[in-house]
Parts: sequence; C-alpha cells; structure tokens
Amino acid sequence: MTETPGLIYLDHNASTPLLPEVVEAMLPYLVEYYGNPSSPHAYGRFMHDAVERARAQVARLIDCAPGELFFTSGGTEANNLAIRGVAAANPGRRHIITSVIEHPATAGPCAYLESKGYRVDRVTVDETGRVEVPGILSMTSIETLLITIMHANSETGTLQAVRQISEIAHASGALVHADAAQSVGKIAVSVQNEEVDLLSIAGHKLYAPQGVGALYVRSGTAMRPLLIGGGHEQGLRPGTENVASIVGLGKACAVVHRDLAVQGRRINDLRNRLWHRLKDQISGLALNGHPVDRLPNTLNVRFPGVSGNALLAACKTIAASTGSACHEAETSASAVILAMGIPEEEALGSVRLTLGRSNSQDDINRAADALIDAWQHLSRTDSGELEKGSHGERDI
Amino acid sequence: MTETPGLIYLDHNASTPLLPEVVEAMLPYLVEYYGNPSSPHAYGRFMHDAVERARAQVARLIDCAPGELFFTSGGTEANNLAIRGVAAANPGRRHIITSVIEHPATAGPCAYLESKGYRVDRVTVDETGRVEVPGILSMTSIETLLITIMHANSETGTLQAVRQISEIAHASGALVHADAAQSVGKIAVSVQNEEVDLLSIAGHKLYAPQGVGALYVRSGTAMRPLLIGGGHEQGLRPGTENVASIVGLGKACAVVHRDLAVQGRRINDLRNRLWHRLKDQISGLALNGHPVDRLPNTLNVRFPGVSGNALLAACKTIAASTGSACHEAETSASAVILAMGIPEEEALGSVRLTLGRSNSQDDINRAADALIDAWQHLSRTDSGELEKGSHGERDI
Repeated sequence: MTETPGLIYLDHNASTPLLPEVVEAMLPYLVEYYGNPSSPHAYGRFMHDAVERARAQVARLIDCAPGELFFTSGGTEANNLAIRGVAAANPGRRHIITSVIEHPATAGPCAYLESKGYRVDRVTVDETGRVEVPGILSMTSIETLLITIMHANSETGTLQAVRQISEIAHASGALVHADAAQSVGKIAVSVQNEEVDLLSIAGHKLYAPQGVGALYVRSGTAMRPLLIGGGHEQGLRPGTENVASIVGLGKACAVVHRDLAVQGRRINDLRNRLWHRLKDQISGLALNGHPVDRLPNTLNVRFPGVSGNALLAACKTIAASTGSACHEAETSASAVILAMGIPEEEALGSVRLTLGRSNSQDDINRAADALIDAWQHLSRTDSGELEKGSHGERDI
Repeated sequence: MTETPGLIYLDHNASTPLLPEVVEAMLPYLVEYYGNPSSPHAYGRFMHDAVERARAQVARLIDCAPGELFFTSGGTEANNLAIRGVAAANPGRRHIITSVIEHPATAGPCAYLESKGYRVDRVTVDETGRVEVPGILSMTSIETLLITIMHANSETGTLQAVRQISEIAHASGALVHADAAQSVGKIAVSVQNEEVDLLSIAGHKLYAPQGVGALYVRSGTAMRPLLIGGGHEQGLRPGTENVASIVGLGKACAVVHRDLAVQGRRINDLRNRLWHRLKDQISGLALNGHPVDRLPNTLNVRFPGVSGNALLAACKTIAASTGSACHEAETSASAVILAMGIPEEEALGSVRLTLGRSNSQDDINRAADALIDAWQHLSRTDSGELEKGSHGERDI
C-alpha cells in the first residue's frame, strides 16, 4: 500500500483530518463496546447513552435543544431530508427559494421538487458571492414553503446574511434552511441568532469522520422522514445509529466549540498571511469572495494568465483544488465563480486554498513560495495557458 | 463512564462487535490518512483507491462485479434505494410483491409506494416462517415491478427460497430484491446462484461498523438515486464516501469469506448444543423457525408458561432480545412469530438467541444454565406469567 504523500494540505473544505481527541473518543466504540442502541439490554442502553451524550455535544455547539437534532449519514442526506422532508409534510405551499451557488445536495433536491411541479426561484449573487437579499424579498410570498441558502459557500467562503433572510421568510410564514456544512466548526453558528428552522452539519468538514452528519429541526416544524424504516431518531431517520461516528461527531463539536475563538483567529491570520504573500509577488492576483464576510480559513484567488488546474498540477507540494470536490466532472470554470460575474477566462485561473487546524506558519510560507514559483514558471513558459480540464481527471 | 457489563452476548442479529482485523484495517484511515475521495490530488486519489479496494472485497463475498456495488449508510438505506430506486426508474409497472414478515426498512418503503398508488401484495408464511412460493406465483403478473423478500429472517433465521422466487419473477419480467442483511457473512450468498437483481448488505451485521452498507444492483438494471446530490457512486448515491467505514466493511467481507465454512460449522454446533441443552431441561420448549433451512447462528425458542421479556429480565448474565431491535416499541408478541400461526400466548414466550464468532462453548454452557434456572424459577413462582411489555422499555 502506498503512503499518503507529505503534501501541504490546503483542502480542508473538501475534507478534514480527524482530531486526535476525536479518534480517542471513537476508539472504545470500535474496539471494546458494541451493540445496537435500540436493544433493550445493557449493551444496547450503553450505546444509546453514548448517542445521547454526543447529541448534547452537537446541540451545545449550535445552540439548540438535543431533541431538535437528528443524526444522518452526512451533509448530503441532511440537506435532502431538510428540503424534501418539509415539502412532504407541508403540501399546501409549493414555492421554494434557493440561490444559484448552492451545493449539489441542495440544488439537486430543489430541481427534483421542481420536476414534481414546485416553483423554484434561484436568487443571484453579487460580485462578492453574497445572495441579493432584496431579490429574496421580492420572490417571497405566502406560497413560499422554504428558503434554502448555504450559510458559507464551500468555494469562496462567503457568508450569507442568513438572519436577514430568516426575517423575510418568517414574515411570510416560510421556513428557512441553512446548509451550514462549511461554517459550523469554523465560526460561531447559533440557530437562535440565525433564526433558522433547519440547519445541516457534515462531520468530515469539522474534524469528525466521514459518513455522519446532523440536521437541526426547530421544535414544532412539520417534517416527514426521507428514508422509511424503524422508529429511530424520533421516527425521522430510520436505521441503526452509527454509534462510533456519532461519538466522534459529538467530540469534534465539543473540541471546536472549546477552541473556536483561538483557532479561528490563528487560522484567519495564516490565511491573511498567505493572501498578502501571494498578492505581493503576483501582480494582478484577485480575490474571489467577500473581503470580510467570509470563512476565516478560505482563500479563493484568481491567478492571472494561467489556469488554476495547471497551476496546481505544477505545484507538487500542495494538495488543494480549484473548486468543490462534490461537483460533477468539470472541465470548465466554477459555476460559483461565474455566478459572481467573473469572466470565464479569469475564472479559470481560480484556486481554492482552505486552511485548517493542522496548518502551521511554515506550511503557509512554503505554500506561498510554491504557488509563486509555479505561477512564475508557467507565466514565463506559457505552458500554463488556459487549458480546460488539464487537472480535472476526477473532479467529481 | 460506565463499562459495558460482561454479559454473554447472544444478540448478534441486532449488531455484531467489530473484528480485530476490521479495526486494524480502519485505524490508518482514522489516524493517519484523510482527504475527500473525489478530490483530484494525491490525498483524494489515495482515499479513492481505498474505497475501490473495499468494493472489490465486498464483490468477492457475494459473487458480483465491483461496479455492481453501491455503498450506502447501511441496510435501511440500501433497502429504500433498492425498492424506491427501481420504482422511480420503471414507472410502467406498479405492482410489488413482498412478505408479511419483512423488516420495517422493506415494509416501510412498500407501504409508502402503496400510498402513492402502487398495488402491494404481501405473501404469507408457513409455520416455519417460509414464504409460500405458490402464493408468489399466483400474485406475479406482467404488471409486477418487483418482488422484495428478505433472504433470512432476523428473528427466526428462516431462509427463503430466493432462487425459486427469482425464477418466478424473471418469467414475468419482474425484478427481485433480497434483503440479505442477516445472511451475508453467516452463510454463503451468491447473487449469481440466487439470481437476484438487487441485494442489500448491512455492515454491522457482519462484524463491520454501523453506518455502512451496500446495495448490489445487477448490471443493466434501471435505477434512480434516492438521495440527490453529487455524482458519487456512479451517480446512484451522492455524498462523500465514509472511507474508514467502507474500508472496514471490505475487510470484514474478506475475513468472513475466508472463515465462512469453519465459523459456520462451529457456530452451528454451538447453536445446536444450546438448543439441545434447553430442550432436555425444559419440557414443552418449542423452536420458532425452520428446523433446517435457517441461519446457523439463530435460535428462536418459545418457553412454555413464561413471557420471553420476563425470562430475559430474570436472566442477568445474558444479553439477548425477544425480537428485532428495529421494530417499533412493542408490548405485544412478535408479528413475525404470529405470522407463522403461533397463538399469541405461546408467541409471548419467545426469545431470540443469536450467536457469533466471539461466543465460546463455555458461553453456551453458561447461557443454557442461566436460561434453565430462570425458567425454572419463574415457573415455580409464577412471577414470569405472561405479562405484556415487562421487558420492552426501549424495544424500538
């Protein structure tokens, strides 16, 4: 078996390594403890209690009651459950508002409902990637079932004015869902402050395992399950709970909650250092996303005159990407960047650099050197000229 | 934190402990390796390769091509995807045949489709729990979309004549789905021999983690995804793959495949020893399920004159259950046992004892002693008289 190469990992928005504390918390549930949380005997009760402790840890991070949290297999299932679950339970309203820059796990369910006769409006974004709140206001009516907007964009990190959107929605009796897969764990997120009715969490974006997530559902919200089966998770999500992963998610939430201020500041400083290092050496480098209102770990930049794919291919010491890992095979510019009004030729020069807890100052210095070297080399040789898909072998 | 008690674990049909080899295979993917399998860089490719190695291991166990396997979050999702996925892709046929003894993850999706206008026929079972194949034959027509039958019943272990059912189905152009969550890993299961089109696997029933499963879909079968999102799993199951758990499932499949004959025989012998020990001492003890055609690890017995719940409550050294862990809170007799024509008063005396790889001969001797003692005590004091729900605190 080959070893993972010791690259500088700048792709934390795609997936994070597990925190050592998370692995430590999970291990007993892999090595020592077992049983079905629904079994009535002591083994079952033990596993059940572990799930409930984790639920309380997740609830504390996003400021909700534990009973308002439902564990899922990840962010994709949480988004599907949120959007299709409220649609199934509230057949009287058949209008949905979303944005043009959503993750496929939101855009897909919206398009599915559209194919079933729902009216779906997609609000545009400004040049910083923020959705146009006046557009949402004009679209919203008493027919509106749901406004679903991602809290932070996975490619640019731009944060949306979720609370403002919630106020607009609630004035018309509509519900609000925020896909917070990218924001929870990186910034403080409170469902009370944001006033959302539904909020999605993905474990592997916040140092917990892949294959586990959660959906917050405000108490009293009419919902139907998406999967159908046993009565687990208050009847909203059947299937035996993946106890070890849920324990890991709970622990990750506890740790990021504890460290949020310190790590947020530290990572923000590193991110800004990387930006200034690149900006100083690369004339014409431009920022994709909001200059202030964005995730502290995310730096999406357009390199002038080269393709982002060619740049990353030339940059052997960095693991990063040109866009979301979850989009279809892409040989063209990112739809998120294009939606911000960036011309395609410029958009193709974009690279997403997303930092995390494991990155050091040395990482950032070396990454900056490598990116500057690669850009200078490609600019000199012209070999990095805009080629479609040169690095997109499996960019799904 | 309390420790799990050192009980004799006879509830392997509810959930299995992880094999040490499985934990060992998973650990590097929790501790050392990370990344999103869809990312185009070296970290992503490394994780992607691990997923594909696991897919080949699962495929080898059930005798299919790796490209016919789709990883899911578990058995419940696999069953939902199988049943609702073929329904969505084949709208021309709107008749489904299932049985009266299915798991909620099959019965639920069938009832859901029934509420959407599908015709659903539910075949009965004989006194051994085998579905009446002539009944299926008479129900099947060119309108039949799907026959979905669990390969082995989780409560009695009775095996169904899946191949015969497949032949009937295919003669009418219908598809066959087998929920093989309980049989895969306990007996040899080949999708070629059974001639099924769809087959569900649940990780935590075969010594892999909870929260991972797989659906076999015969090449060429028209299917639609259930969750909607990115293009993962050939577009049939979106969401970032839970690499560590998938690696664990692959390893578990490799180990159970290697050991199937030896462990099957050993566990079968232990199960038979337990049956004979109990039968010798308890006059009127009866077997639930088929005497021969059933899982080698499963012993479901009716104790005369006592309730199964009271018996297990009195039997402090054994972790077992009276039925499936995934059913709704039950204060009545098992629907599976009742469907076999057992009178309710007798059915309430049922206990499911399900063995696994970790059980020793000593476990079985001690379990037999404990069950006999408890039964004798309850029979003498009359305190074990049939009471509904005396042990059903959280039997969901």
